Amino acid sequence: MTMLAISPLTAAAFAPFGDVLQVQAAPSVMINRGNCARYSDLAGLDFSDGRAGISVFHAKPYRSPLLLDMMERHPQGSQAFIPMSDDPFLVIVAPDNDGKPGLPQVFETDGLQGVNYHRNVWHGVLTPIRGNGLFTVVDRIGSGSNLEEHWLDSAYQILF
Amino acid sequence: MTMLAISPLTAAAFAPFGDVLQVQAAPSVMINRGNCARYSDLAGLDFSDGRAGISVFHAKPYRSPLLLDMMERHPQGSQAFIPMSDDPFLVIVAPDNDGKPGLPQVFETDGLQGVNYHRNVWHGVLTPIRGNGLFTVVDRIGSGSNLEEHWLDSAYQILF
Repeated sequence: MTMLAISPLTAAAFAPFGDVLQVQAAPSVMINRGNCARYSDLAGLDFSDGRAGISVFHAKPYRSPLLLDMMERHPQGSQAFIPMSDDPFLVIVAPDNDGKPGLPQVFETDGLQGVNYHRNVWHGVLTPIRGNGLFTVVDRIGSGSNLEEHWLDSAYQILF
Repeated sequence: MTMLAISPLTAAAFAPFGDVLQVQAAPSVMINRGNCARYSDLAGLDFSDGRAGISVFHAKPYRSPLLLDMMERHPQGSQAFIPMSDDPFLVIVAPDNDGKPGLPQVFETDGLQGVNYHRNVWHGVLTPIRGNGLFTVVDRIGSGSNLEEHWLDSAYQILF
């Protein structure tokens, strides 16, 4: 089985797929009498004919080795995952290749990062690897189908 | 100086002011082959003529005793705070009393909760009390003034 290596999550490497929600080089503004740095409007949000909603996801952490046999995308909206702990999680994405996921890329967050998948970007399911598995999600609330799943011809293995 | 007591944050107690973002009694749906519970659409979002944005706030934790001498509200939009750690923080709100904040109420989260202030609800500034002070914020991105500050005639003290 083909193994996939894990890279640290950086904004530059993740740019083709979405946004990294993290502290930036300089704040947009200092607020609250200098006690708080605000880094504004970090995500490319797109909910098509729906609207933004805030949901909570509670996932069980996965154990190594992880088998990646399916990827999914949301044709109608972006989807942001914000960890409610300082535990790293895996972020798995792939470029589109004629309507199917191409070679997946695997990133690991540093514990202080969230992600926003752009609309219609192939990604793996939410993959905490330790901690409480709690995430807040900002995605599209609306009618109609917004989930496309693709089962891979050959599964990949990820060790962590 | 008048002291304010701290109560545990519950959805019922917080309902007049906004939403508690937390795991609910039953999931809206189980996803990811049973590995993840999704609790959908927990927040009353309202961005008036603006749009939803995701920002990161990085605040220094406050130390006891806390002096509450100002409260603020956002006439044009709701504002959600999602802690990116499992550390409790204080949530300070007040009913409106003829255009000014009434008696403030102070809640402490259990470390697994976020909050969404409804549009135009009086609240204190973001108040982490320990941990990394990192929060993701979902609020209105748009033009025009969206901040009203009210300096209290008499400050309150909060011990934690």
